[in-house]
Amino acid sequence: MTTSSTPADLRTGTAADVVAGLTLEQKADLVVGATFWTTAAVDEAGIPAIMVTDGPHGLRKQAGAADHLGLENSVPATCFPPAVALGSSFDTELAERVGAAIGLEARAEDVSVVLGPGMNIKRSPLCGRNFEYFSEDPLVSGELAAAVTRGIQSRGVGASLKHFAANNQEHDRMRTSSDVDPRPLREIYLRGFERAVKATQPWTIMSSYNKINGTYASQNPWLLTEVLRDQWGFEGLVVSDWFGVADRPAALRAGLDLEMPTNGGVSQERVLSAVRAGELAEDTLNACAARVVELVQKSLRGAETEVEAWDSEAHHGLAREAAARSAVLLKNDDALLPLNPRNSVAVIGEFARTPRYQGAGSSQISPTRVDDALTALTEASSGEVRFSPGFRLEGVEETAGAQDAELRAEAVQTARAADVAVIFLGLPAAAESEGFDRQHIDLPAEQLALVDAVLEANPRTVVVLSHGGVVALPFAEEVPAILEGWLLGQAGGSATADLLYGTANPSGRLTETIPVRLADSPAYLDFPGEHGHVRYGEGIFVGYRWYDARELEVAFPFGHGLSYTSFAHSALQVSSDDAGLHLQVTVTNTGDRPGREVVQAYVGRPGSAVARAPRELKAFAAVALDAGESHTVELTVAREDLAHWDVRLDDWVVEGGEHVVAVGASSRDLRQETTVEVPGDEVAVPLSTEATLGDALAHPVTGPLIRDSLQQAVQVGEDDVFSAEGLLRMLKSFPLGRISGFAGAGLDREKVAQLIAMTQQG
Amino acid sequence: MTTSSTPADLRTGTAADVVAGLTLEQKADLVVGATFWTTAAVDEAGIPAIMVTDGPHGLRKQAGAADHLGLENSVPATCFPPAVALGSSFDTELAERVGAAIGLEARAEDVSVVLGPGMNIKRSPLCGRNFEYFSEDPLVSGELAAAVTRGIQSRGVGASLKHFAANNQEHDRMRTSSDVDPRPLREIYLRGFERAVKATQPWTIMSSYNKINGTYASQNPWLLTEVLRDQWGFEGLVVSDWFGVADRPAALRAGLDLEMPTNGGVSQERVLSAVRAGELAEDTLNACAARVVELVQKSLRGAETEVEAWDSEAHHGLAREAAARSAVLLKNDDALLPLNPRNSVAVIGEFARTPRYQGAGSSQISPTRVDDALTALTEASSGEVRFSPGFRLEGVEETAGAQDAELRAEAVQTARAADVAVIFLGLPAAAESEGFDRQHIDLPAEQLALVDAVLEANPRTVVVLSHGGVVALPFAEEVPAILEGWLLGQAGGSATADLLYGTANPSGRLTETIPVRLADSPAYLDFPGEHGHVRYGEGIFVGYRWYDARELEVAFPFGHGLSYTSFAHSALQVSSDDAGLHLQVTVTNTGDRPGREVVQAYVGRPGSAVARAPRELKAFAAVALDAGESHTVELTVAREDLAHWDVRLDDWVVEGGEHVVAVGASSRDLRQETTVEVPGDEVAVPLSTEATLGDALAHPVTGPLIRDSLQQAVQVGEDDVFSAEGLLRMLKSFPLGRISGFAGAGLDREKVAQLIAMTQQG
Repeated sequence: MTTSSTPADLRTGTAADVVAGLTLEQKADLVVGATFWTTAAVDEAGIPAIMVTDGPHGLRKQAGAADHLGLENSVPATCFPPAVALGSSFDTELAERVGAAIGLEARAEDVSVVLGPGMNIKRSPLCGRNFEYFSEDPLVSGELAAAVTRGIQSRGVGASLKHFAANNQEHDRMRTSSDVDPRPLREIYLRGFERAVKATQPWTIMSSYNKINGTYASQNPWLLTEVLRDQWGFEGLVVSDWFGVADRPAALRAGLDLEMPTNGGVSQERVLSAVRAGELAEDTLNACAARVVELVQKSLRGAETEVEAWDSEAHHGLAREAAARSAVLLKNDDALLPLNPRNSVAVIGEFARTPRYQGAGSSQISPTRVDDALTALTEASSGEVRFSPGFRLEGVEETAGAQDAELRAEAVQTARAADVAVIFLGLPAAAESEGFDRQHIDLPAEQLALVDAVLEANPRTVVVLSHGGVVALPFAEEVPAILEGWLLGQAGGSATADLLYGTANPSGRLTETIPVRLADSPAYLDFPGEHGHVRYGEGIFVGYRWYDARELEVAFPFGHGLSYTSFAHSALQVSSDDAGLHLQVTVTNTGDRPGREVVQAYVGRPGSAVARAPRELKAFAAVALDAGESHTVELTVAREDLAHWDVRLDDWVVEGGEHVVAVGASSRDLRQETTVEVPGDEVAVPLSTEATLGDALAHPVTGPLIRDSLQQAVQVGEDDVFSAEGLLRMLKSFPLGRISGFAGAGLDREKVAQLIAMTQQG
Repeated sequence: MTTSSTPADLRTGTAADVVAGLTLEQKADLVVGATFWTTAAVDEAGIPAIMVTDGPHGLRKQAGAADHLGLENSVPATCFPPAVALGSSFDTELAERVGAAIGLEARAEDVSVVLGPGMNIKRSPLCGRNFEYFSEDPLVSGELAAAVTRGIQSRGVGASLKHFAANNQEHDRMRTSSDVDPRPLREIYLRGFERAVKATQPWTIMSSYNKINGTYASQNPWLLTEVLRDQWGFEGLVVSDWFGVADRPAALRAGLDLEMPTNGGVSQERVLSAVRAGELAEDTLNACAARVVELVQKSLRGAETEVEAWDSEAHHGLAREAAARSAVLLKNDDALLPLNPRNSVAVIGEFARTPRYQGAGSSQISPTRVDDALTALTEASSGEVRFSPGFRLEGVEETAGAQDAELRAEAVQTARAADVAVIFLGLPAAAESEGFDRQHIDLPAEQLALVDAVLEANPRTVVVLSHGGVVALPFAEEVPAILEGWLLGQAGGSATADLLYGTANPSGRLTETIPVRLADSPAYLDFPGEHGHVRYGEGIFVGYRWYDARELEVAFPFGHGLSYTSFAHSALQVSSDDAGLHLQVTVTNTGDRPGREVVQAYVGRPGSAVARAPRELKAFAAVALDAGESHTVELTVAREDLAHWDVRLDDWVVEGGEHVVAVGASSRDLRQETTVEVPGDEVAVPLSTEATLGDALAHPVTGPLIRDSLQQAVQVGEDDVFSAEGLLRMLKSFPLGRISGFAGAGLDREKVAQLIAMTQQG
């Protein structure tokens, strides 16, 4: 057992030095939470406890003592738009400012680490926690998460990228194994994390509850050490999700530094006995304890960063700005929007009065205030504004349809009397939450009935949506204007009024596809899995990659979003060098008011040797333009972003050849396209007895040596049961190691051994 | 080393006794082919060589010495309809007669084992060898393969079920790993084999080229011993596919008895050195050698079975009967078919003159004769029959469209002048073959252009199709009548005339879905895989299971097929007992001519705890009825056929509860439906620390003990961030082993340990 010596000074010593002075018991204490929200203090060594607390779109710090599940009574904080909305801004500068504001509020509450951003991929629309995540696309997720992280950490507070990794459902979330093949794991589920880790070096990353291919993320040395630290260079601390450690010594060996929260000393006991039994190397414990000490050191230094006091009004203003940037104008026939302030408006739907603006679960914030759309619209309008709730949010199941019909009839009357009707639809809070997944993506039936009735009464009807996960929009063809608000945070109501009246011009874009029906969605048949396993059977074809590859119609495609003005794209230029692709595209505001265009660059590789989506988002940029203004947008696609994961090499490889670069305003509104030749990475896979004649034929060294004799071997006669083409293909699939039984192409065992040797020398 | 003693008599001794008298070298010789088509003789022991040769839909025995690939010059034999067609008969009695005829021809050629039937599942329409397989459904595959096997073996000749298993593509076929999860592996890819093995005890089964989840089928002890012998009770011999063994000692250990063909002594050497080095137990070798001896013994006994001489005319007649039962009438608007013999007919399409009737590769037979449709139609018609080739089968790529246009113009003229046009379309032989997969499912463009042109000239147009793999039918809406012939064998031409003129009444049914487009098909995005792996990402949702579950439109559904008469279904009755389900349904021929109805029973389990297709074929029966005749068809669904594979138990389990039984004329023409309560198998999975509170709540022993306290724990307050429902679901996902940190439901570590112990005692 280690004995205590005079510990190194926490403020001047390295973490390793500090840890060297600790007892085994002290170190075991350090790697497990002391309470629900704090790390262990080691008073003898001058190590204070630090507090970590929930995010991700605002601070959720419990006001008093934590209850056993850490869910009650949090201090007031600004509720910014959850990731589902903020991501739709495609605005990293904005996301960074939001992060900075959250960091500021954390500083004011002595919180050292905010548990966010959440950045898991939206594999299925059903995942109950999708509202906490940015996108179905790893580039968008990675960029937005990096921005929020930069913002939080700019205030001397740590972020925590979560949930690492392949945590894409709530069902049986603490046990299910996400069974994912190497390519989707690397290219879809890890790629955003890789991006954000490399770009921002977050203080912490949170391991997820689930297993990955049979091993808990929290106990997965491949994930937490090989990939995260060795390959990506992560220097921070890995914290478990709450109660997410099944075997503390195994988690330490995997590289999980801090288990949260306390489990009453059980984990410490296990760690001590594992070290004593020689099952856990003390050095492993030391390394994890040192990372906890480093986090404390960062926190202490962070607390010295000068920051301004936080101003709840200013933060509310930022929340309003962010909300206005986040909503997506899905449809706007005949320029029904923006509303004319002099017109009379029928405001319909309980959500106008009782806003749905955040999701349920650990991220649920006690907001400093909440704007409702009804008040904001009333203030913004000089015409008459009349309200009808249209439906109830509670007690729907219990009563017969009579009350619904009554509310609907009243709403229809209201709509009929007004110049325009705005219906606020959405999912009741109980319909989606952390902790469970949805079973369907339908809006409540009474709301769908309401739309139909109102639309019949007044064709000038606008639908405004509030919900965390994608919903089907069966009325999308008929309703002339739809504003997709997702969950807009505490200022969503006023931001909605800003957008409806054109004070703000919509510029949000979909970060996830809205399918026509759930049955079209990629994971439909293997979500959420069963008996502890969920197979990611769609592979790399997640989100728009699936809809595009399957040539499926969608309700609204990834990247889609309208504006009150219009934009022309022109003069696309693409060049390629060692750093990647460099794009220039000129964007012109061709309408009559200022607006913001999100330019999206997609890259495809037709004829690839591996399975590929037709196109993948590889760069985006937002540009704000006055009416008539033009700007040349420059986009860079880093060379590594062109790579796919090569399972033969277990590494990223850029495939050489023509790549198609398409630039536009959505994944299905591609305005310009060009091809660019990209030099490939050299891939030299040595031959083996398991390699085929086809491999030998394709190999630069051996190919020329066997080409002629193979060609001769496939001269077929009249009676032959294969065509020359068929025979050649059959021969190509022949493994070299079995050539001894095959004398067809002038090859024998000795010759084969020579060919293999040639490729292994290189 | 074993020394030779006086060997036991081959005809009276057991195989083990015979083997006990052999030297190590002799045993090593026995487990590897001596030539391309024969086993090793051991003269000293009186063990003769026996011959095995290709099938599956006729005999392909090489006439002279085998060439190095065994592909040239085979003796004349009857080419029966390949499995793609024969399966469509849904007629096991017919299939058994065909098998018996093949067995008879084998006997005449001193062939001991016919290498067939092929029974792999049609995972993708692209698989080049689909023409050798029966269906996308394991019940159909299993039943038809069993029937053919029974037939072959009734003649004292062995069958060889192939290719075992999960061999569903030709691309990189000798190396690729079919990465399949347990449920699809058991429920789809192995289930047909299991059925046929248990029903017929085939003399041999052929291991496939591919790997399964990383291990070669030929070297897979789980597959060849645990599943095949231990679980299914297989008593025969496992033979490799030709050149399908990479490591002979490993294959012996796995239970692969006979490697084929010879590889010039390499394998024998390896076996000997492995035994001498102690890497291969001699007992293992003995067991495999004994199975070879047993096969020889069976062959000798089989050669004593009395059989009649085979009559090529009679077999041709059987081939014609089988072909007529196999073709599927997809469409017949306004009763355009059968043709009136007095009408003039334009016969269009090169395939009418140059029939495509079998596939390319190892199954390609030298037929005793070949009927072409043009001759047969001319004979059958009393009206004028004029022919235009319409397109060319060769040289299409090389020349411009001028020649095509000329042929088309001529065909249009012919069509215009006739009462009715019959166009013979299909895939050229080079488009599909063993050895490679297709890239698309389109008919050649010039054929599609021809249909359009002919149809415009004569709306009374019938399309007759000849091809091995599914093709898209973009003209299906416009063309009034379509006869899907697949590949009908050597008598396909005359059978087609029989069907077109109504001498035979069509009764074939689709054993595979014809999709609207390839992009709709289940394996579209992960076929044929890359870099040595193919992920079966669609899981259990293969064929109609996919189209139904995804609610996709199809061109023609599984089980579909029309008749010149009509059938009514009535009086469905279903009862359930320990043996399974017993169905009765009354079928009435409501038309004016005799016909044959294929009654299909599908079972679904709505609300199942595991993923399920909406319905699965569980029984079928064909009934021949005169006009006006009624018959009560009895169908049995064995209880084991209701089971799904439970990954927790690694065993079959029947889930209790309501099952929906739907009976009809196709998977999407379900005429009657009823529900039946099925008692479930008892599944007692003991709790562990990895089990969740939800598991404990669901467990019959522990559930009642914790229900109340859990209910109390989810009383939520105003401020709580979860709804009661959300909280309950969250708690249910909590693993018991982590309960120490969680005091919510009156549970602590001790109580949890007690609960777990209770369930483990049972």
